[in-house]
Amino acid sequence: MDTRLSEVSLPAGLATDDGITLEELALAARNHGMPLEALRHDLTPPGLHYLLTHYDIPALDPVSWRLSVTGLVSTPLELTLDDLRARPARTVRVTMECAGNGRAHLRPRPISQPWLVEAVGTAEWTGVPLRDVLADAGVDDTGVDVVFTGADHGVERGVEQDYQRSLALPDALRDEVLLAYEMNGMPLPPQHGFPLRLVVPGWYGMAHVKWLRAVEIVDEPFTGFQNAVAYRSRQTADEPGEPITHIAPRALLIPPGFPDFQSRHRIVRPGRVELAGRAWSGRAPLASVEISTDDGVTWREATLAADDGHRWAWRRWSATWQAEPGRYTLAVRATDADGNTQPEAEAWNRGGFANNAVHRVPVTCLP
Amino acid sequence: MDTRLSEVSLPAGLATDDGITLEELALAARNHGMPLEALRHDLTPPGLHYLLTHYDIPALDPVSWRLSVTGLVSTPLELTLDDLRARPARTVRVTMECAGNGRAHLRPRPISQPWLVEAVGTAEWTGVPLRDVLADAGVDDTGVDVVFTGADHGVERGVEQDYQRSLALPDALRDEVLLAYEMNGMPLPPQHGFPLRLVVPGWYGMAHVKWLRAVEIVDEPFTGFQNAVAYRSRQTADEPGEPITHIAPRALLIPPGFPDFQSRHRIVRPGRVELAGRAWSGRAPLASVEISTDDGVTWREATLAADDGHRWAWRRWSATWQAEPGRYTLAVRATDADGNTQPEAEAWNRGGFANNAVHRVPVTCLP
Repeated sequence: MDTRLSEVSLPAGLATDDGITLEELALAARNHGMPLEALRHDLTPPGLHYLLTHYDIPALDPVSWRLSVTGLVSTPLELTLDDLRARPARTVRVTMECAGNGRAHLRPRPISQPWLVEAVGTAEWTGVPLRDVLADAGVDDTGVDVVFTGADHGVERGVEQDYQRSLALPDALRDEVLLAYEMNGMPLPPQHGFPLRLVVPGWYGMAHVKWLRAVEIVDEPFTGFQNAVAYRSRQTADEPGEPITHIAPRALLIPPGFPDFQSRHRIVRPGRVELAGRAWSGRAPLASVEISTDDGVTWREATLAADDGHRWAWRRWSATWQAEPGRYTLAVRATDADGNTQPEAEAWNRGGFANNAVHRVPVTCLP
Repeated sequence: MDTRLSEVSLPAGLATDDGITLEELALAARNHGMPLEALRHDLTPPGLHYLLTHYDIPALDPVSWRLSVTGLVSTPLELTLDDLRARPARTVRVTMECAGNGRAHLRPRPISQPWLVEAVGTAEWTGVPLRDVLADAGVDDTGVDVVFTGADHGVERGVEQDYQRSLALPDALRDEVLLAYEMNGMPLPPQHGFPLRLVVPGWYGMAHVKWLRAVEIVDEPFTGFQNAVAYRSRQTADEPGEPITHIAPRALLIPPGFPDFQSRHRIVRPGRVELAGRAWSGRAPLASVEISTDDGVTWREATLAADDGHRWAWRRWSATWQAEPGRYTLAVRATDADGNTQPEAEAWNRGGFANNAVHRVPVTCLP
């Protein structure tokens, strides 16, 4: 079987030229980013939140669906959706970002979903804290990792699989990790994991397993494809690499003025232009946002909206710009409380992960 | 000003090679198709319906928003959203498709939003029949075209504009043409035209003006950019071309089995495989759907679901396939009651419009 699968499921690759292939385009046509003007919303309206589906969106029947909790537990569980809804619920506002955001700007370009900078969105997720369910199951002292299995099935680089990711137990037991059945107060849409998904605030999207059907406690670090092969930062194909975990800081700018349809180049009129956007970091609380109107030669501090207590969600920032006729490249960057910031140039790795280079927006101010 | 705009807003172009440019990718990352597995739903869930926004999604205040009805009318109107909601409502189920669907398969490739085949979706739109509002305004006998203006503003091939399209009066006065304020029973999402959009069942998407703010009756055929320049079928750049109007027949297949993440190539197991999908035509009622498992060498009739009275929506079709190990190209095509069908090969035009070539899905059946 592997021989045949390997004919249609190729190893990871790097693009030899700048043109996006039809295969990458097929991913871009399915999965979508958040149009940047949607940064105006505190909560991303349904349908504008970014979306990345590895295989197909499964069709699950919420009545027959079950969540199993097994492995190194004293009481294995099999939970219905009603069982989960009957438990004390918690709602967490979370900015979620794809680990591959920014990939299409890398040279050479890793062949995969070709994101520019739009693979982000913010939602309020409601569900049951994972640790409450694990407490009921009774995790054995020998437990090391928690393995989460989705109902989405496919093949990737020759490996047939259900989508699976693990968390180390201390990460899984954090207060804010949820088994979520609602997004913005409504049942999950099919594409966001109906009927249940994992939400791991502060982590890149690959950790938030959708269409969740099984949770298993194991006694050694999980070596499944998505943990050990796919989501690693590597310079060469044969090194083990570093795991992708927490979201690096990023600020994005609502593109000012109006666009050209095709190039998306922005046009403004002379005078005062209000600049605004959002910034976030999954690594430490946000500390500052800086803006440049000369492509990063000089920077000044933007105004950060007051901290509203949503640690895992983006914060609004704003600044004003006195525009005069000419061509400009606006740039914006965020820094968090640990001093993590955004590089001027893309930091390259083979998978194209966690590329948080400064966001640049070319603008023409007409006379 | 034109000189400066022309620096950042280029004429229509054709791609010189197969690689998708970053500008086309920026459109693909914003606008998105419907993942084909969503063909399983009668009504496309919010967020999976295709979306094409020429400029930015405007932020409109539903309280201060007004719809003006002016021009050759006896009583000009200025309507609030509550005025419209107070009128008798009608709901119409509509399959909407982008006129550029299939564009990325053309050679040479017209440079624009690079759709493959996914630019489609079906929704129930609720609103006021346009003709009821026009009856109240009293259209003058000299009226020829109805011009619809959206609140979305941008520049396209050097022309700064609010998005505008017209319909000839007989088309505008058809029963099923709506001023819609709900999509699937909910207020329109921002990206689908909140608070009001035009819905013109049977026509390609460019006719369904979003963020509608003005309706004007004029006494000669409208020559605005989107009618006279953009949405025309042309072989050369300097001919006037034919207007793009009603949706050509198309059938799509829910890709069977499971996919490879990167190539989207499909894998099935030997045995009976249920094939299904949807088919539609805006030109005449659907007559038949045919399926081929040998890339169109031989065809057989698929089973069409009973006509459920939704003239403007897609119909489900199904067929079974006894799969044996090997590699296949499945193909499907629709024919309508006027004999319109789908060509084997793409019919080329400079804008890449109304390309309804047969849908093909390569599949490997493993041993």
